Amino acid sequence: MSTGFFGDIQTIRYEGPESKNPLAYRFYNPDEIVLGKRLEDHLRFAVAYWHSFVWPGGDPFGGQTFERPWFADTMEAAKLKADVAFEMFSLLGAPYFCFHDADVRPEGETLTESNRRLHEIADYFAGKMQVTGTKLLWGTANLFSNRRYMAGAATNPDPDVFAYAAATVKNCIDVTQKLGGENYVLWGGREGYETLLNTDMKRELDQMGRFLSLVVDYKHKIGFKGTILIEPKPQEPTKHQYDYDAATVYGFLKRFGLENEVKLNLEQGHAILAGHSFEHELATAAALGIFGSIDMNRNDYQSGWDTDQFPNNTAEVALAYYEILKAGGFTTGGTNFDAKLRRQSIDPQDLIIAHIGGMDTCARGLKAAAAMVEDKALTDFVADRYAGWNSAEAKAMLAGQRSLEEIATRVEAEGLEPKPRSGRQEYLENIANRYV
Amino acid sequence: MSTGFFGDIQTIRYEGPESKNPLAYRFYNPDEIVLGKRLEDHLRFAVAYWHSFVWPGGDPFGGQTFERPWFADTMEAAKLKADVAFEMFSLLGAPYFCFHDADVRPEGETLTESNRRLHEIADYFAGKMQVTGTKLLWGTANLFSNRRYMAGAATNPDPDVFAYAAATVKNCIDVTQKLGGENYVLWGGREGYETLLNTDMKRELDQMGRFLSLVVDYKHKIGFKGTILIEPKPQEPTKHQYDYDAATVYGFLKRFGLENEVKLNLEQGHAILAGHSFEHELATAAALGIFGSIDMNRNDYQSGWDTDQFPNNTAEVALAYYEILKAGGFTTGGTNFDAKLRRQSIDPQDLIIAHIGGMDTCARGLKAAAAMVEDKALTDFVADRYAGWNSAEAKAMLAGQRSLEEIATRVEAEGLEPKPRSGRQEYLENIANRYV
Amino acid sequence: MSTGFFGDIQTIRYEGPESKNPLAYRFYNPDEIVLGKRLEDHLRFAVAYWHSFVWPGGDPFGGQTFERPWFADTMEAAKLKADVAFEMFSLLGAPYFCFHDADVRPEGETLTESNRRLHEIADYFAGKMQVTGTKLLWGTANLFSNRRYMAGAATNPDPDVFAYAAATVKNCIDVTQKLGGENYVLWGGREGYETLLNTDMKRELDQMGRFLSLVVDYKHKIGFKGTILIEPKPQEPTKHQYDYDAATVYGFLKRFGLENEVKLNLEQGHAILAGHSFEHELATAAALGIFGSIDMNRNDYQSGWDTDQFPNNTAEVALAYYEILKAGGFTTGGTNFDAKLRRQSIDPQDLIIAHIGGMDTCARGLKAAAAMVEDKALTDFVADRYAGWNSAEAKAMLAGQRSLEEIATRVEAEGLEPKPRSGRQEYLENIANRYV
Amino acid sequence: MSTGFFGDIQTIRYEGPESKNPLAYRFYNPDEIVLGKRLEDHLRFAVAYWHSFVWPGGDPFGGQTFERPWFADTMEAAKLKADVAFEMFSLLGAPYFCFHDADVRPEGETLTESNRRLHEIADYFAGKMQVTGTKLLWGTANLFSNRRYMAGAATNPDPDVFAYAAATVKNCIDVTQKLGGENYVLWGGREGYETLLNTDMKRELDQMGRFLSLVVDYKHKIGFKGTILIEPKPQEPTKHQYDYDAATVYGFLKRFGLENEVKLNLEQGHAILAGHSFEHELATAAALGIFGSIDMNRNDYQSGWDTDQFPNNTAEVALAYYEILKAGGFTTGGTNFDAKLRRQSIDPQDLIIAHIGGMDTCARGLKAAAAMVEDKALTDFVADRYAGWNSAEAKAMLAGQRSLEEIATRVEAEGLEPKPRSGRQEYLENIANRYV
Repeated sequence: MSTGFFGDIQTIRYEGPESKNPLAYRFYNPDEIVLGKRLEDHLRFAVAYWHSFVWPGGDPFGGQTFERPWFADTMEAAKLKADVAFEMFSLLGAPYFCFHDADVRPEGETLTESNRRLHEIADYFAGKMQVTGTKLLWGTANLFSNRRYMAGAATNPDPDVFAYAAATVKNCIDVTQKLGGENYVLWGGREGYETLLNTDMKRELDQMGRFLSLVVDYKHKIGFKGTILIEPKPQEPTKHQYDYDAATVYGFLKRFGLENEVKLNLEQGHAILAGHSFEHELATAAALGIFGSIDMNRNDYQSGWDTDQFPNNTAEVALAYYEILKAGGFTTGGTNFDAKLRRQSIDPQDLIIAHIGGMDTCARGLKAAAAMVEDKALTDFVADRYAGWNSAEAKAMLAGQRSLEEIATRVEAEGLEPKPRSGRQEYLENIANRYV
Repeated sequence: MSTGFFGDIQTIRYEGPESKNPLAYRFYNPDEIVLGKRLEDHLRFAVAYWHSFVWPGGDPFGGQTFERPWFADTMEAAKLKADVAFEMFSLLGAPYFCFHDADVRPEGETLTESNRRLHEIADYFAGKMQVTGTKLLWGTANLFSNRRYMAGAATNPDPDVFAYAAATVKNCIDVTQKLGGENYVLWGGREGYETLLNTDMKRELDQMGRFLSLVVDYKHKIGFKGTILIEPKPQEPTKHQYDYDAATVYGFLKRFGLENEVKLNLEQGHAILAGHSFEHELATAAALGIFGSIDMNRNDYQSGWDTDQFPNNTAEVALAYYEILKAGGFTTGGTNFDAKLRRQSIDPQDLIIAHIGGMDTCARGLKAAAAMVEDKALTDFVADRYAGWNSAEAKAMLAGQRSLEEIATRVEAEGLEPKPRSGRQEYLENIANRYV
Repeated sequence: MSTGFFGDIQTIRYEGPESKNPLAYRFYNPDEIVLGKRLEDHLRFAVAYWHSFVWPGGDPFGGQTFERPWFADTMEAAKLKADVAFEMFSLLGAPYFCFHDADVRPEGETLTESNRRLHEIADYFAGKMQVTGTKLLWGTANLFSNRRYMAGAATNPDPDVFAYAAATVKNCIDVTQKLGGENYVLWGGREGYETLLNTDMKRELDQMGRFLSLVVDYKHKIGFKGTILIEPKPQEPTKHQYDYDAATVYGFLKRFGLENEVKLNLEQGHAILAGHSFEHELATAAALGIFGSIDMNRNDYQSGWDTDQFPNNTAEVALAYYEILKAGGFTTGGTNFDAKLRRQSIDPQDLIIAHIGGMDTCARGLKAAAAMVEDKALTDFVADRYAGWNSAEAKAMLAGQRSLEEIATRVEAEGLEPKPRSGRQEYLENIANRYV
Repeated sequence: MSTGFFGDIQTIRYEGPESKNPLAYRFYNPDEIVLGKRLEDHLRFAVAYWHSFVWPGGDPFGGQTFERPWFADTMEAAKLKADVAFEMFSLLGAPYFCFHDADVRPEGETLTESNRRLHEIADYFAGKMQVTGTKLLWGTANLFSNRRYMAGAATNPDPDVFAYAAATVKNCIDVTQKLGGENYVLWGGREGYETLLNTDMKRELDQMGRFLSLVVDYKHKIGFKGTILIEPKPQEPTKHQYDYDAATVYGFLKRFGLENEVKLNLEQGHAILAGHSFEHELATAAALGIFGSIDMNRNDYQSGWDTDQFPNNTAEVALAYYEILKAGGFTTGGTNFDAKLRRQSIDPQDLIIAHIGGMDTCARGLKAAAAMVEDKALTDFVADRYAGWNSAEAKAMLAGQRSLEEIATRVEAEGLEPKPRSGRQEYLENIANRYV
């Protein structure tokens, strides 16, 4: 009982690299075994509800370009939207989806009403999840679009907004748990400042710490098994967001003693806006022990805002999955396409095509990364580069068993004069290029 | 007994805002009392040895433009350089200076020789400090120029380089202590990576943590009373530097339990390169309790590298000092001009003129900031903006005495629907503009 | 017969620099004579209809924050909006305003209906202009918000869109002429591309050239005395806009032989997004003979999108007006505040306060610039710096009276070895700082 | 008679995509026929003398890392350098090289001496070119490193510097002609300004126009058959360079009537620094009829300075060659590796490895681009997208046979209401991804 929205498009199948069928996968073969695991279980793809089914195609200089039959503020429209969404999940064979409360139900007159509607839609989702087998990668609350949040949610100067946001998150966690969500995400789009002139940063950071502690406590109380994830972003919409990047969030978690409770949902586009490569953010999170999940997209390198494009550069995506595989791969996390169509891509088919391209790029990238891991070409080089640290004296030094003076004395006594060795970056880049 | 380098330039005097004498201060009146303290004691100006006396005017596309009689690799030249430097400190009435080991002595054949020369020059400095009254704001070690450090100092894959760097820092701290230095700075220009392909980030962070711990232990052992400061920078020369910005260093310090031992030396230009305003970095450090000192300069907003220009925008500088004053002002820290002449400014007089402009801009900015503090125009507004948090219920919520559920129950029970209040940014900007 | 929107705010008066009245000018004294001309006649301030009366406070992550009684799609609401707008122009004493067709009337079912409405509102404006004395600095057509323009207006792949846009501009010029507009502006927000993969750049540039030629021809035909202005912007909303910056538009005009027909409307924020300082764009336009008018605002230096903030940095604004005054000042152009409130500034008063701050910043900046011009402190230095070019041989060389060989022969014969002279940048910056 | 510098490395051979030999080509098969032409004749690879044989590995924070036996300021060293360089050209099978005068000979006491040395080395080169078959893609003059050029060459305030630069270029063109160079390049690294405060931009642009005219006249006079190329760069070392990007140079050429005489040498890294993609600059130059040659490298997307890395992303390089092939491919131009080793890549082998990686990336990219051209997958889509312009009425409109009024009348009469069509960006990106 199709909605007909996607016309006669059939379930997308894997046809192999040589296929010229734009409605087939060339690299995403879910059952292919890579490093001993099904590709689907490696990648754990999710579709983002908001970009694909809610965003009307507007930008700061223009309005709606997409014409969707479900664009209306009613529960009926919300259900039609769900029908089309789950239809698309099935067509794509995407095992997961993600959503904000605001994506799936029209806001009510009161929070009670909004919550009631959220639960009603959640039940509707539950039925569809049962039928289609689609699972929930994560749920989240939209604490940034409504004008009540214009000055922040947890970090609002008004404690009533803090409370309102807390109440909203409580319900979203409840619904996420009900739907078997494997993670719960917090993106603090308005948790930051527009101008320091009206801001008490220390107080706001304290508020944010308290808010996160409340969420963690609640998770344990209700026995939610999913992971709590923070999604860093440096700015936009806010001039500065407190969850700037992976390293910043790490410091925040340490400050509030939450570094073992909360992990990161890292987005390619947010990494770029923060002045980092995506693989940098992944490597940082892994080094600090807080890697969780990814929002996969790509940011135009020449645009200074969040372009949320579908990924299409295999070489770059391969480097990202290489860091993920080195960190052990996903546990509760996955690959969520936080990517939106270009606003000129107004045909229903474009939605399908864009996801095919994104999923194929990721599959191809992951397979390349897996081969790099298997061949150890790079890891052996790295191990050898640091091999000097395996000496007893070096180990003692690193373990804190030598004082600064002792080291200084030894250096002068031995007349140490270290000789630099080539970093061989171009060689390693050539090696990596063998795989993509 | 002048070197003659500065011709007939006499000691720079304060002549007041109406002066048109390019060789006079218009705003820097050291003895003026501001917020109950002498202006000199607020600003604690320091001249940076490296930019003013060592840098030859080169850039990546061209070589030396400055012709200085002391440009030679001998101890004699090093002493002539010191003569001119202290002459300039006196002409300017700058109470402090800062230096790297590599700035002040030619490198020896061995570390032992380099250290011996460092101590010899330090003794020479000591005599001049005695005579002129100039003090040492901070000392530091150059762990980035020599090719042995090309892959990092503390984070080098070769433990011998770690050791060599440790030995070097030990000597620089010794010399800093001998000269009564009030701080010791670590800038990790090569502590980062060029490519993740050859890098073990976790290991390198551990090395860096150990290195810093060694320094802190040594400081205590020898009874050095100064503050250990880390100077963040996001990149350049390295593709990524681990001490990216204030928030990142905070996380690093927390990870190694050093957040009460080490503070930050923040630079305007590094803030800009990290995608922040300078006042952001200052406010962040203050909020996190790790504000220490500043490197004052300005970075061209359209250039993507460290331009290290002398500050000249009073309005911006005022916002920086406003954050510093709100944080209690400097204790051991100060205002170090980590600023260099444009490479076309080849006349000796340019050195003097540039510092006059920088010092006047800072003095004017600090006086504006002090007036803002005194008038409380902004702080009263901010206090009022957050006043809702003074209620008993809000305090209880922030103190962790309410659970997420309790808050949610209350929000629904009370039918809370917070009403946004104007953030009044433009009004506050107009207020701030009254002071500059 | 006030609308009451602004409460009891009275006409804003000049009260001098010492005033602490937030509803008074401290620097904008319209009748003050500067360089022989009234300040009002120098600055020629205009209020932008769109930001102040149309924009709802949305950003890519949140919706409306402003609540305005005229936010409705009716002609009645359009007239209420006009009532409030002209009230504000009068309160501020702003001599000019600017508008797009889409700002002032609801779009009709057909272009004919839209045009009829535009003329109806124009007549309504005419009455108000008569009464208040407010004049029209420029009119313009919105060729970017409606989805029909999603792939460009003049550069659309569909010639019907080109035609539709042409018809729209024709009507906007008519209305601009009717209202005595002193300029007509074209900002090509969608004239560019999202991806080269679907774009024929050469064809699109030809279309754009034709479009501009049609406009110029029409202007002459109807005897419109105003200046045709192009407003450059590098990107946003489009990935790349063809009117990237001043130098790019110059090349475009030359290509189509329009360099004597069309000038530039330069915006501070667009300059920043293009990687330039505002004064660079002004100096470039002046050097190329195509300077026209300005859109005054400021772009946050750390944000990569168009932030359109009110200017508040006098030193920067002074440098901009310095270039304008050196170029002879405005003729038909003026200072249009293409600036919007921060979306948290939701009070009616914020609109007034923001413009006061902007106008004061500009007035202060212009007065500083005028003093710099009068004192010739900088211009004399510059003249002296190039004085070598006044020699007969240098003039001959520049005039093309010497061949490369002749020059080469002379250089070797005379053994020329030019000696560099200090560029004295810091000295000049200190001089400029005397004026702000 | 090898210099021995490269040890036992033998001539690099093509071994096909499956080769794991780091000293073999996997994609660069010079004799492979692509689009009817040998791959070597498509790509026309050149090695840049400066980066590979002159640059010591320094950056703004550190000095020499490379140890090369020819690093000395003597003619003997210059010849050893040439020996190694031509050895490397042969090992790589690179058909071309490029050089600045300053790269190849030590500067003399006088220009006459410098020129004499240049000719002596040119003769030495000529012999090697004869033997090895290596050809000169282009020559150029270094008008930026010596301090005499610190304030510009052609745009210097001192006419003697203009003259000195002119004499230098004359000699470099002579030498380029003597060596059969196929182009002559001008990169104006110092042709711009550091601060507008000391700059007369209009005068400087006139000087630059005159300089270029002199060069063009001389070329014709001596019958030099090569192309004169300008290499745009937005900034660095200069705060602003007049040859900002392709569009800017086009306007400059038009202003001085040189648009048919001079073409562009476009560099990937410079495009990125100017806020453009490389393919944008190529498409722009092609659309404006001034495409000439390329400097192939890559710029780190997160670094704000010229990183000049070897290219390694095939997908990006393919898009660049796609634009080049659409523009007809190279005529006198070619692919010059204006790329340098990372400063940690200190082994001789790194030089070889880096070029192999770059050449392979380009070969693979060009082959992908050629297949896209052959399949017309994209070009057919584009043709169809603009097909509406083939109607008689659309053609008339574009040809200027319709006035603005006529168009407006028709639009209203026909009740035109254009319907947007999907731009299908994701579909096209997927198509393009089939080829890489």
